[in-house]
Amino acid sequence: MPIRLDDKEACFEQDFAALLSAKREVSEEVDRVAADIIAEVRADGDKAVTAFTSRFDGLDLTPERLRVSEAEIEAAIAACSPELLAALETARERIETYHLRQKPADSWSTDAIGVGSGWRWSAIEAVGLYVPGGTASYPSSVLMNAIPAKVAGVPRVVMVAPTPRGETNPLVLAAARLAGVDEVYRIGGAQAVAALAYGTKTIAPVAKIVGPGNAYVAAAKRRVFGQVGIDMIAGPSEVLVIADSTANPNWIAADLLAQAEHDASAQSILLTDDAGLAAEVEKAVIAQLATLPRAEIAGRSWKDFGAVILVSDLEGAIPLVDRLAPEHLEIMTADPERLSGMIRNAGAIFLGGHTPEAIGDYVGGPNHVLPTARSARFSSGLGVVDFMKRTSLLKCGPDALRALAPAATQLAEAEGLQAHGRSVTIRLNL
Amino acid sequence: MPIRLDDKEACFEQDFAALLSAKREVSEEVDRVAADIIAEVRADGDKAVTAFTSRFDGLDLTPERLRVSEAEIEAAIAACSPELLAALETARERIETYHLRQKPADSWSTDAIGVGSGWRWSAIEAVGLYVPGGTASYPSSVLMNAIPAKVAGVPRVVMVAPTPRGETNPLVLAAARLAGVDEVYRIGGAQAVAALAYGTKTIAPVAKIVGPGNAYVAAAKRRVFGQVGIDMIAGPSEVLVIADSTANPNWIAADLLAQAEHDASAQSILLTDDAGLAAEVEKAVIAQLATLPRAEIAGRSWKDFGAVILVSDLEGAIPLVDRLAPEHLEIMTADPERLSGMIRNAGAIFLGGHTPEAIGDYVGGPNHVLPTARSARFSSGLGVVDFMKRTSLLKCGPDALRALAPAATQLAEAEGLQAHGRSVTIRLNL
Repeated sequence: MPIRLDDKEACFEQDFAALLSAKREVSEEVDRVAADIIAEVRADGDKAVTAFTSRFDGLDLTPERLRVSEAEIEAAIAACSPELLAALETARERIETYHLRQKPADSWSTDAIGVGSGWRWSAIEAVGLYVPGGTASYPSSVLMNAIPAKVAGVPRVVMVAPTPRGETNPLVLAAARLAGVDEVYRIGGAQAVAALAYGTKTIAPVAKIVGPGNAYVAAAKRRVFGQVGIDMIAGPSEVLVIADSTANPNWIAADLLAQAEHDASAQSILLTDDAGLAAEVEKAVIAQLATLPRAEIAGRSWKDFGAVILVSDLEGAIPLVDRLAPEHLEIMTADPERLSGMIRNAGAIFLGGHTPEAIGDYVGGPNHVLPTARSARFSSGLGVVDFMKRTSLLKCGPDALRALAPAATQLAEAEGLQAHGRSVTIRLNL
Repeated sequence: MPIRLDDKEACFEQDFAALLSAKREVSEEVDRVAADIIAEVRADGDKAVTAFTSRFDGLDLTPERLRVSEAEIEAAIAACSPELLAALETARERIETYHLRQKPADSWSTDAIGVGSGWRWSAIEAVGLYVPGGTASYPSSVLMNAIPAKVAGVPRVVMVAPTPRGETNPLVLAAARLAGVDEVYRIGGAQAVAALAYGTKTIAPVAKIVGPGNAYVAAAKRRVFGQVGIDMIAGPSEVLVIADSTANPNWIAADLLAQAEHDASAQSILLTDDAGLAAEVEKAVIAQLATLPRAEIAGRSWKDFGAVILVSDLEGAIPLVDRLAPEHLEIMTADPERLSGMIRNAGAIFLGGHTPEAIGDYVGGPNHVLPTARSARFSSGLGVVDFMKRTSLLKCGPDALRALAPAATQLAEAEGLQAHGRSVTIRLNL
């Protein structure tokens, strides 16, 4: 059974705080293992990468076989059904259209004393995209990571995706082609992260690495941060559904289970002011679980991490929502926009009863790579600017420099940086 | 003497690669020490913070004395000269004006099939600002970190600044007040980072920590990343000056030394196509060093990390510039805009002979918190969006959902996520 909380009970604050701080992932030894793998890849390059791939993926490769060939990609596409390829293309087009709206503008202006200032955005020169293997190998994630990179103008997008025992997912390769990925390597784990960050003879290094992965991948990304940029450290996925009495309990149950089926450590939470609805949702979850192929995983997630929070007043509960800072927030109330506008911390908001999160996972348009584990308090979903960087620009002529000189030299002097001051005054012919 | 490189010599590529990979900071034991300090602060809160402050800063505090009082801030402001306060206000106003241009826009639109999508920006709820103590305690850094946070709308900006043996810098407190900082604590090091990330009884936790610090601060920030957001891991500062024969060697020398005086591990590089200019700059550096108060530091930086790179052709050298990805780039050529437009990787560009970096450090307007150690390849200087996050929004009605359902359910099915598909079909009454 999921945890049940009620804001009318005395222990509510304590239980809610416990819900917030519950660790859904352990990673004790993981960091040390990741560090060792990175050190070996830095030292031995391709040789270390192939050795780890043999050990962890049961796949023996030579350096020449690390890269997935054009012919293999073509063959993979030919193996996909036309219907699926069309669905992928629908997704690609909608995701691209949404992300094109995010392209940031350059700026330049000259102020009253003649100082020109502004900035210029440019794409990152090369980006690595981590795609998990096995059960979490999702073509939709390829689109969600690669399309914003290409919209940003990244000239070289490199994908790594492990193929345990050689099993490739044709749709993942099709998605890579559709999204414009430039190179694909059949490697994964911390060894793939290390290869992307430091480069090997076969794989040129990138400047930033994005994409979700298991605990080893997350630990490796944290380790190489600084050498390259990284996106957020992804944790298990989560949804919070806010619902009032107008919501359909069966729809809510379906959405809670869609989240729960991802992973036994995924988290689905319902927050409602209607005790009757809460009870109906719990019943519907049990009923729907019975006919779900991934009932085992979804059931464990719901039992171990699911939660039903009963509150007296939905608007009054907004501080709780901001503390949870959910990755996905569905609002199924009479006026979803009103509540939405009051919430500070959420990765993505799905408005109204006809917007299941699954639409956003695939074809809505917005990115499905979103901040997990309460990081929506300080970070955003993946977007075009994550693949760009801003260079600030400044230009003074002699008069503008003269106008700014007194303030600059006084502050430099106060900070004990006389050479700073001199670099200004030397230009004034004083 | 600085390193001298010449792209006409056979060993150039090797020497240039060595210049790129030269570590300017060691941090072996540092990470372990930072981890221990964080663990103690998490366990013991204020008690640990005061104990470390006593040990590292030679300052005995009680929890009540951690926070700098309003009266102390008022007294500090009264101790500053009116001229300095006016210079600070000039800086504040120019920095604010520049950063107001960076406020990002929300977006909402409805497409042809009736899907509404967009995003909304919101300010981070609480931000911690690390300000180094001792020689690196710069009021200008307070402005550069706090102003964009306040422009973003962050309701709670918390500053920590160590005061070794109780020595406060009045101008730092004045800058905090001017910039709108809400709380100031006289603590530093990894213990301050831990207190901001996890909170203590006295210091409420924040959601993001920004600002430069020593190796312990950097290691602590890396450790708490995930619990809170962080800005980049700052390394020693650096400048690259690109100059042709039109440039003034004395001005270049002054700028190289302004960088070098920061820190013995700062780096100043000149890249030019004019061997005569290079020689004159080297001579001018020696001459100007003689009269510099911080000659010892600047001299060591120039000797250990300075470099003069002679190239046959400035435009042809742009790939070298992009590999260096300098924090600060000064372009003193006949047509600086032309070169500027060709460069991908730089934190900030200063155009033309009358724009010394020092103007940008204080009063230009753009932020002086910039990506160091080649991280301009993948990251930007501090800006308003670093204090905000974007929530994506999606809304379907029944018809839009019906239109998107086939593609979404096919992809869900292909990914083996039947509950995802069901969360869509259950709403269609099929």
